[in-house]
Amino acid sequence: VKTVAVRDVPRAAPEVIARLWTAGVATVHEAQGRIGLAKPYMRPAWSPASAAGSAVTVLTHPGDNWMLHVAVELCRFGDLLVVAMSSDNEDGAFGELLATSLKARGVMGLVIDAGCRDVAALRSMGFPVWSRAISAKGTVKATVGAVNLPIVVAGVSVYPGDVVVADEDGVVFVPRASAAAVADAAEAREAKEAVVRERLARGELGLDIYKMRESLERQGLVYVDSPEDAT
Amino acid sequence: VKTVAVRDVPRAAPEVIARLWTAGVATVHEAQGRIGLAKPYMRPAWSPASAAGSAVTVLTHPGDNWMLHVAVELCRFGDLLVVAMSSDNEDGAFGELLATSLKARGVMGLVIDAGCRDVAALRSMGFPVWSRAISAKGTVKATVGAVNLPIVVAGVSVYPGDVVVADEDGVVFVPRASAAAVADAAEAREAKEAVVRERLARGELGLDIYKMRESLERQGLVYVDSPEDAT
Amino acid sequence: VKTVAVRDVPRAAPEVIARLWTAGVATVHEAQGRIGLAKPYMRPAWSPASAAGSAVTVLTHPGDNWMLHVAVELCRFGDLLVVAMSSDNEDGAFGELLATSLKARGVMGLVIDAGCRDVAALRSMGFPVWSRAISAKGTVKATVGAVNLPIVVAGVSVYPGDVVVADEDGVVFVPRASAAAVADAAEAREAKEAVVRERLARGELGLDIYKMRESLERQGLVYVDSPEDAT
Amino acid sequence: VKTVAVRDVPRAAPEVIARLWTAGVATVHEAQGRIGLAKPYMRPAWSPASAAGSAVTVLTHPGDNWMLHVAVELCRFGDLLVVAMSSDNEDGAFGELLATSLKARGVMGLVIDAGCRDVAALRSMGFPVWSRAISAKGTVKATVGAVNLPIVVAGVSVYPGDVVVADEDGVVFVPRASAAAVADAAEAREAKEAVVRERLARGELGLDIYKMRESLERQGLVYVDSPEDAT
Amino acid sequence: VKTVAVRDVPRAAPEVIARLWTAGVATVHEAQGRIGLAKPYMRPAWSPASAAGSAVTVLTHPGDNWMLHVAVELCRFGDLLVVAMSSDNEDGAFGELLATSLKARGVMGLVIDAGCRDVAALRSMGFPVWSRAISAKGTVKATVGAVNLPIVVAGVSVYPGDVVVADEDGVVFVPRASAAAVADAAEAREAKEAVVRERLARGELGLDIYKMRESLERQGLVYVDSPEDAT
Amino acid sequence: VKTVAVRDVPRAAPEVIARLWTAGVATVHEAQGRIGLAKPYMRPAWSPASAAGSAVTVLTHPGDNWMLHVAVELCRFGDLLVVAMSSDNEDGAFGELLATSLKARGVMGLVIDAGCRDVAALRSMGFPVWSRAISAKGTVKATVGAVNLPIVVAGVSVYPGDVVVADEDGVVFVPRASAAAVADAAEAREAKEAVVRERLARGELGLDIYKMRESLERQGLVYVDSPEDAT
Repeated sequence: VKTVAVRDVPRAAPEVIARLWTAGVATVHEAQGRIGLAKPYMRPAWSPASAAGSAVTVLTHPGDNWMLHVAVELCRFGDLLVVAMSSDNEDGAFGELLATSLKARGVMGLVIDAGCRDVAALRSMGFPVWSRAISAKGTVKATVGAVNLPIVVAGVSVYPGDVVVADEDGVVFVPRASAAAVADAAEAREAKEAVVRERLARGELGLDIYKMRESLERQGLVYVDSPEDAT
Repeated sequence: VKTVAVRDVPRAAPEVIARLWTAGVATVHEAQGRIGLAKPYMRPAWSPASAAGSAVTVLTHPGDNWMLHVAVELCRFGDLLVVAMSSDNEDGAFGELLATSLKARGVMGLVIDAGCRDVAALRSMGFPVWSRAISAKGTVKATVGAVNLPIVVAGVSVYPGDVVVADEDGVVFVPRASAAAVADAAEAREAKEAVVRERLARGELGLDIYKMRESLERQGLVYVDSPEDAT
Repeated sequence: VKTVAVRDVPRAAPEVIARLWTAGVATVHEAQGRIGLAKPYMRPAWSPASAAGSAVTVLTHPGDNWMLHVAVELCRFGDLLVVAMSSDNEDGAFGELLATSLKARGVMGLVIDAGCRDVAALRSMGFPVWSRAISAKGTVKATVGAVNLPIVVAGVSVYPGDVVVADEDGVVFVPRASAAAVADAAEAREAKEAVVRERLARGELGLDIYKMRESLERQGLVYVDSPEDAT
Repeated sequence: VKTVAVRDVPRAAPEVIARLWTAGVATVHEAQGRIGLAKPYMRPAWSPASAAGSAVTVLTHPGDNWMLHVAVELCRFGDLLVVAMSSDNEDGAFGELLATSLKARGVMGLVIDAGCRDVAALRSMGFPVWSRAISAKGTVKATVGAVNLPIVVAGVSVYPGDVVVADEDGVVFVPRASAAAVADAAEAREAKEAVVRERLARGELGLDIYKMRESLERQGLVYVDSPEDAT
Repeated sequence: VKTVAVRDVPRAAPEVIARLWTAGVATVHEAQGRIGLAKPYMRPAWSPASAAGSAVTVLTHPGDNWMLHVAVELCRFGDLLVVAMSSDNEDGAFGELLATSLKARGVMGLVIDAGCRDVAALRSMGFPVWSRAISAKGTVKATVGAVNLPIVVAGVSVYPGDVVVADEDGVVFVPRASAAAVADAAEAREAKEAVVRERLARGELGLDIYKMRESLERQGLVYVDSPEDAT
Repeated sequence: VKTVAVRDVPRAAPEVIARLWTAGVATVHEAQGRIGLAKPYMRPAWSPASAAGSAVTVLTHPGDNWMLHVAVELCRFGDLLVVAMSSDNEDGAFGELLATSLKARGVMGLVIDAGCRDVAALRSMGFPVWSRAISAKGTVKATVGAVNLPIVVAGVSVYPGDVVVADEDGVVFVPRASAAAVADAAEAREAKEAVVRERLARGELGLDIYKMRESLERQGLVYVDSPEDAT
């Protein structure tokens, strides 16, 4: 592990972050071609929660949250802290005190591939956290890691400055360079889905709207009238 | 996998479904002899949720939700869609659009041995879903499966037309042929439990109500007065 | 397994239990030197929930809840029932009837390293339960175990009469002999944290408050200005 | 649970069992249309192991192996015992003594969706076992279950008399009625694969043998010469 | 965590350790009343492996193996090192170098509720290890723990000087005070089982040897002749 | 997902690959600063196995192995195929036929974050595979993915042309650019460890060789003579 903290990284444009936040995790994930989604074990510590921001990345170690303190200083308004562990661990590396500190700097939330604690306080503060576990197990401050280097978090390669969108459906990461294009695609998708949703709500079938009947038949689907005919 | 969709299957009587719904998962499971319960990893996507219906069964494949679109057309008011995967998978094979379509047909809810997404929208719509995961991961429409054939879902063998009851305690399936008898047994059990509950609430002991003291002693239970006497 | 039920065990003082309850799981765990915390798979069956009490311990077997009925009689106002299984099992060994019985005796809640059911009823009754699963799977009453002997529950060695504190952060156990000292330490910690929290809320950094900069440098942390400098 | 033991069930023809055994799990699974495969957590207790037989089915309970003793009497030469639990459990419900008894009756092996013990003795005896865990945890004999009723084991619906094939790739079940047809299909598949294997071994490509190039292009696959061209 | 290393602890008598080793894990576990068995995720790093010794206990932290170095010095010929983590972790806290050091002191093996590495070297050295994972992930030496205090390892409360027996069936711990009595019970059990095994091998049924038929009937087991009679 | 196959990527020098292979996974992982290690759920399909090569990367989808056929053509002697899934899946996406094809091209082995099948054949062929599961479940060829783009596999970000080293301790990836330097560091480490191993084998203590006694004391470790002194 390179023990480096990068003071400044380029951020995504706030208005693009806002557009992606509005689109939500599921739409953003689809819009960027079904990549960048954290594994589904990442869940909000309290619900309903929703946040977006520019990633400040942290790599730390099992049972050790020292680098989170280093990261706080490098965060700005509109950032969202993203924490990876050097190996799987569920200890509560984040709690009320760090949340207080991050909130004081205008940080939008936390994504941590480990545990968090002080859930009641986090909910009271309205500070959203996505984690793999809730755990009161405290952590040491003994081994240095890195801030604002590329990390792998919950199965996704994340760079500092990437856009993070998180809600009840999970967490998705969008590379800064493609964020505006993904926001465009997400909005186009939303518009198209709104029309489809309207038609479905009125009772039209997806089979007809998406014209699936022919390809289903071509792939071998056979309709029969009753269970007896199926054998 | 047989690639067949069965257009029509016998349904359980609505009034029986209603009686089983009223009894709830835990009582129904006991009443039918402790069988038919989905494994406990099946959890409601939002809470509290409760639903019952006649099973329309779907067999589909990991990362593929094509057959759900086929199933929608074969659903009626009072049905509940039950989806099995050909192998373990947590992708979000179900979301707001399919829920809109099912709701428009009067479907009572969804049980899916995979993931679902758009949790906030599902809650807003009041459309209940039981799944093994929340995941925004979208799915393809590439491989055909089956609708209304027997499936195994979360460890239970389910036939189309079986009664599904689902609430915060999980999901239970009741064969159509025995549904009325199970409803009878469930109500009898409820009546008996109401009496016991009343006695327990007044401070009587289960040990006495169920007359367990003698058999406990016969099986070797020994009472001692203090920890020192136990060694 | 020794098949013994111990009628009477020493309890912790109620006022100490109350002080530990007020401090909460995360603080108590830290205050007693980061030991005694149940593994994080133990979660409240409904939220938010919070309880504390004097442990009455039960050892029972997978799929069998007979000993819980034995334990009820040995519980008093202010106790909290703690149940271990002789091997891993998620069956619903606890539900509304037992909760009714425990509530009638003034028991504060339940910690069970197995499943529980009747979640809606437990919430309605306001009876808090921490468990490893929600499962409607009923259990038999066939094999005797023990009440008020030492047990291992969710990775922690627990003695009857230990203080149990449980909330949204999990479950922690405090030996009776050290409970008062841990309460002192917890309150001292709370006081100290209140000051730190205030400073953090005003924008001071943990790096400065805890004087970490020097030791971080000594351990090899290097600051660079931009991502390019990190390679 | 119906507490019944069925004395006699139809068996598959021995020569069909032998043909399916020869084909092996992976080929049989493909040949019957990719159904009937136990979840991959079912592993051989010792390796390499391979067995096939006619299923005698058992339903028993977590931590209880009483019904296995009932099943032994109902087994014949060429059978293979298949054991399901009424809920997930890893206790060692099977060991050397039961293996001795089954071997004395000519039983081919055991598939158990729970734990087994005495691994060294099983290996010495050459008695193959597929289980979800190795565990020395003994079990009680307290609750009756069923023998030779339909069960769900490791995600598959199994009927008494179905053919079981198990090897290092896992466990597959073939309904008795279709066993001969599946054996035919498996052998046809083997023959076809032998030709393909030969061609692949000589360096021909699957892309060409299966003529995939055109459909890959149609589905959108693009070839570029170097990583730089991919962005 | 108390940061203490206890230099000397009472050991179990070598001849008792040898007798328990001979009996093996499954028999010892039964003989002491089905307690003291490590959870079944503890598996040998290489097979077949078998060891027994007097426990030297270590408590260390996720990702940190410092205390193992402390423990080495306190080990003697005939000891077996038993390592618990303060929270779940799979890092490779043990490898070839520590094994070399332990072997030089005559230590019989290692039980570690974490990961180990250098599997090929351990096998070559014939040094047996039971662990929850194989992982090459190295660990730091930053935080002190304890040696020869009571620990909880894989669900079992272990005291320094307890007897550890480990083989392909898992790991069992026997309190020093009861070790001789357990060895007696194990040998008695072995003798009894040898007789039963002989009878089973000759084709007698457990049903008859254990006289189970009557109690099975009393508990409700019904025999029918064919599947049709079961419905 | 970008549906691209990159025909040619730079490879690491064969002699560097050989040096890293000789060093082995555990040493390489340490030598490059404890990064690049696949999560420990990646295990060899048969043992003992050991391989190294230049990574050809594949991204494919749950239940779909189409892209592996595309990848074969782009492999050369000395390569090692590395396969990531777009979401978690254990299906048997790799078996004897693909192994035959890869072997015919001189590919050294396979690392796949999914399942593999035909274990007996793979062992017979001496073709090593590291996977997260053994599963006979066949896969479709329906959805295109990518070859030789960057992927995340078992928690590690991997680029085509990176060096892969895999043995019984797991799988580690080394960026091509730093491969020679890591080989140097690994060899230096091996040399140093050989000396330490020698000293440990003769009975010297790690405590003394690494001069840990003082820092242990500074961190608070206290020695006492007997268990009684520890309380």
